[in-house]
Amino acid sequence: MAFRQKHLLGIEPLHPDEITALLDVADRYVDLSRQPNKHSDALKGLTQINMFFENSTRTQSSFELAGKRLGADVMNMAMQASSIKKGETLIDTALTLNAMHPDLLVVRHPHSGAVDLLAQKVNCAVLNAGDGRHEHPTQALLDALTIRRAKGRLHRLNIAICGDIAHSRVARSNLMLLGKMENRVRLVGPPTLVPQQFREFGCEIYDDMAEGLKDVDVVMMLRLQKERMDGGFIPSEREYFYRYGLDADKLAHAKPDAIVMHPGPMNRGVEIDGTIADDINRSVIQEQVEMGVAVRMAAMDLLARNLRTDREANKGVMV
Amino acid sequence: MAFRQKHLLGIEPLHPDEITALLDVADRYVDLSRQPNKHSDALKGLTQINMFFENSTRTQSSFELAGKRLGADVMNMAMQASSIKKGETLIDTALTLNAMHPDLLVVRHPHSGAVDLLAQKVNCAVLNAGDGRHEHPTQALLDALTIRRAKGRLHRLNIAICGDIAHSRVARSNLMLLGKMENRVRLVGPPTLVPQQFREFGCEIYDDMAEGLKDVDVVMMLRLQKERMDGGFIPSEREYFYRYGLDADKLAHAKPDAIVMHPGPMNRGVEIDGTIADDINRSVIQEQVEMGVAVRMAAMDLLARNLRTDREANKGVMV
Amino acid sequence: MAFRQKHLLGIEPLHPDEITALLDVADRYVDLSRQPNKHSDALKGLTQINMFFENSTRTQSSFELAGKRLGADVMNMAMQASSIKKGETLIDTALTLNAMHPDLLVVRHPHSGAVDLLAQKVNCAVLNAGDGRHEHPTQALLDALTIRRAKGRLHRLNIAICGDIAHSRVARSNLMLLGKMENRVRLVGPPTLVPQQFREFGCEIYDDMAEGLKDVDVVMMLRLQKERMDGGFIPSEREYFYRYGLDADKLAHAKPDAIVMHPGPMNRGVEIDGTIADDINRSVIQEQVEMGVAVRMAAMDLLARNLRTDREANKGVMV
Repeated sequence: MAFRQKHLLGIEPLHPDEITALLDVADRYVDLSRQPNKHSDALKGLTQINMFFENSTRTQSSFELAGKRLGADVMNMAMQASSIKKGETLIDTALTLNAMHPDLLVVRHPHSGAVDLLAQKVNCAVLNAGDGRHEHPTQALLDALTIRRAKGRLHRLNIAICGDIAHSRVARSNLMLLGKMENRVRLVGPPTLVPQQFREFGCEIYDDMAEGLKDVDVVMMLRLQKERMDGGFIPSEREYFYRYGLDADKLAHAKPDAIVMHPGPMNRGVEIDGTIADDINRSVIQEQVEMGVAVRMAAMDLLARNLRTDREANKGVMV
Repeated sequence: MAFRQKHLLGIEPLHPDEITALLDVADRYVDLSRQPNKHSDALKGLTQINMFFENSTRTQSSFELAGKRLGADVMNMAMQASSIKKGETLIDTALTLNAMHPDLLVVRHPHSGAVDLLAQKVNCAVLNAGDGRHEHPTQALLDALTIRRAKGRLHRLNIAICGDIAHSRVARSNLMLLGKMENRVRLVGPPTLVPQQFREFGCEIYDDMAEGLKDVDVVMMLRLQKERMDGGFIPSEREYFYRYGLDADKLAHAKPDAIVMHPGPMNRGVEIDGTIADDINRSVIQEQVEMGVAVRMAAMDLLARNLRTDREANKGVMV
Repeated sequence: MAFRQKHLLGIEPLHPDEITALLDVADRYVDLSRQPNKHSDALKGLTQINMFFENSTRTQSSFELAGKRLGADVMNMAMQASSIKKGETLIDTALTLNAMHPDLLVVRHPHSGAVDLLAQKVNCAVLNAGDGRHEHPTQALLDALTIRRAKGRLHRLNIAICGDIAHSRVARSNLMLLGKMENRVRLVGPPTLVPQQFREFGCEIYDDMAEGLKDVDVVMMLRLQKERMDGGFIPSEREYFYRYGLDADKLAHAKPDAIVMHPGPMNRGVEIDGTIADDINRSVIQEQVEMGVAVRMAAMDLLARNLRTDREANKGVMV
């Protein structure tokens, strides 16, 4: 089954076969990015606009590089400095952009659902680069590709997602993707940061790292948003690290060949011990970044193909 | 008659035939931008530098996209963060840039006349992207193209420009362009925002929207700069909307097929009612944005052609 | 002898023949940048990332333009707005970037040595765009190219570097380069701004401009960092200009054909008189900017060639 989506708004609408199809294309782009000549013309002639209403150097760079390597004309819009300050509504901003005829629109927005709303107003492919606490699909896809390459498969694995689940769109998108691919997912963290309603995703919840990591194949740490500490969610960095930070002792409960992941940027000594993060036998944190570019190349390539097919079918109807 | 300018500093120096020539080229770029492959090589090998001393996401994006689609090497310079902070003069900044051999220099500056001054110091084509209260030629040209496409002609039309005329370079450039093309222009707005000396452009001035819009073909609303309200120019947003905001009642005075324009970003409910802005039978606001990219492609293409011809003629003299 | 470096971290590691080789390539890129079509494909397929931890519109633009003209996929990262704010270490930032497979990494950083450290962690070519008070090699190289073109040679010249030597990486890199090429360098400035230990570079130190400029071929002025005045290094701008600012009287002590240089941005009336800066018979300040782009093109081209050779040699080992 091919990848049939018009947009990439979340993991939720994807069929497992579409996920596999996308990861297969991404694998080929990993190879390309390792070549001396890492430029392709897959998006040549197309316009990609990156609209980040929240700062994210890492994600924006990854999308920008992905588009440039595929030959698109790429434009970043600094939305903080823009018309939204002048009181323009999100919809007007979207319509304005749409009138410039982008083919691919990459959007990050602080409000859950804002990207879906925007996608309804434009006639190009929209990629969600993170919206509120809702979804961050390319992060889940890059995590999936990293796991598949490290473990040789993306199903029937035991995976622990640890830390600040409550505020994390990364956790949500990962939960959905890993569930669709028939893995067993556990959530591990302090009760204040792990909402009980996440049981609906079919996962077990642990408050204790030793239990939660027992015999897992994958340990996925999340970034601790420091602002949570002021909110009374956790007592202190030191206390947090003692109970929930990943160190050698806690990791010893996982399978001997378990891999360690983190979406970055890391707080070393808070949610993860620096030695573990740097252990090239266990940590795949750098691979995640590399897979990020490849997955975004794949997503934009596939969406652009569907866009072209659509336009071909609607010739004469296009505005 | 061809387009013979070295720079695009304003509407004032343009011959009506040059305006027509530019709009004809822009029409072709509208077609290109609607193609699946919207990239051309018209500016390939050339360097375009965007120097914005005032923030303007919309205009800068439009120029950036125009240049990238035409194959130029495009560079944005964030002038707020730059050498001007370190006390460098505008002229030194200009000379520095000039030494980097740009071919096209797009400049926005808060002071009227700054762009003209700069153009005298460099040996590339300069495009004015708005200078103080002086001119904003590409805005007037995109408005003209929008009108010509909607109405089938750009002469003998009755056009009302409404709102904050006094502080608007958009109004000034439009007044000149529409006058050159032999249209009848009216200015409509509160006396504090419509200077009487604008009569010199040969236009009528109205304080009342019903009278001002009577039988016009085009209603061109301007953005109300909210900072004007503190300055005592207008009483309140609500009062302003009641008297000068475009709504269905006021629009009913215009011709039944009159079009509604706005340069954006809009203050919905202040200078324009949201319903009117969204009425696809009347509003051409999105078209204006689309025409913006096309007009900037045309302007840069034509200036680059003249630059090449000039350089060919002066071969060996070039520095 | 060819240019054999893997990185361009400073002038210190360069052999004089490597400097000559790089300047020879830069000369050809000066010619290219003066052509109507100033685009080459020397870096086509490669990715250049500019990582500026300190603002520098001028230097960053020069590198950006150089890369774009050579056909690289160029990405600027605004490091102020980035992960470093989120507490990420420099090394983690470097590893993250490295995982995106750049080929050329251009780095400016406020701490001396930070760029060297970073270069050890990545497997691409790193160019130092200025680190603390340590080195700014491309500035020294562009100064050297400017001198060589103006004077017809880059050896046995008498060169005065004047002003705030103590805080200047530009002065340090220039001292080393000019020494390697067997020129006689003098440092001129107030004792508070000219450290005595710089005698180790084999140069003479003067407190008096008349003596210091006597019979020199090149007068290289440095920018006065205004923040030095608060630090008690100098009494006032006026007093500074009177004693150390370059004006016609002081310049009269130099050779009649001496050239005047300044790295920009200038404080006119502080370290240099505006008339001198604008005198096209003496000042080569604009040429310095032009040479800047060419030197950066040459440096990136040569490093990319070495990178390709290296990768070819290590085929199969690459990660």
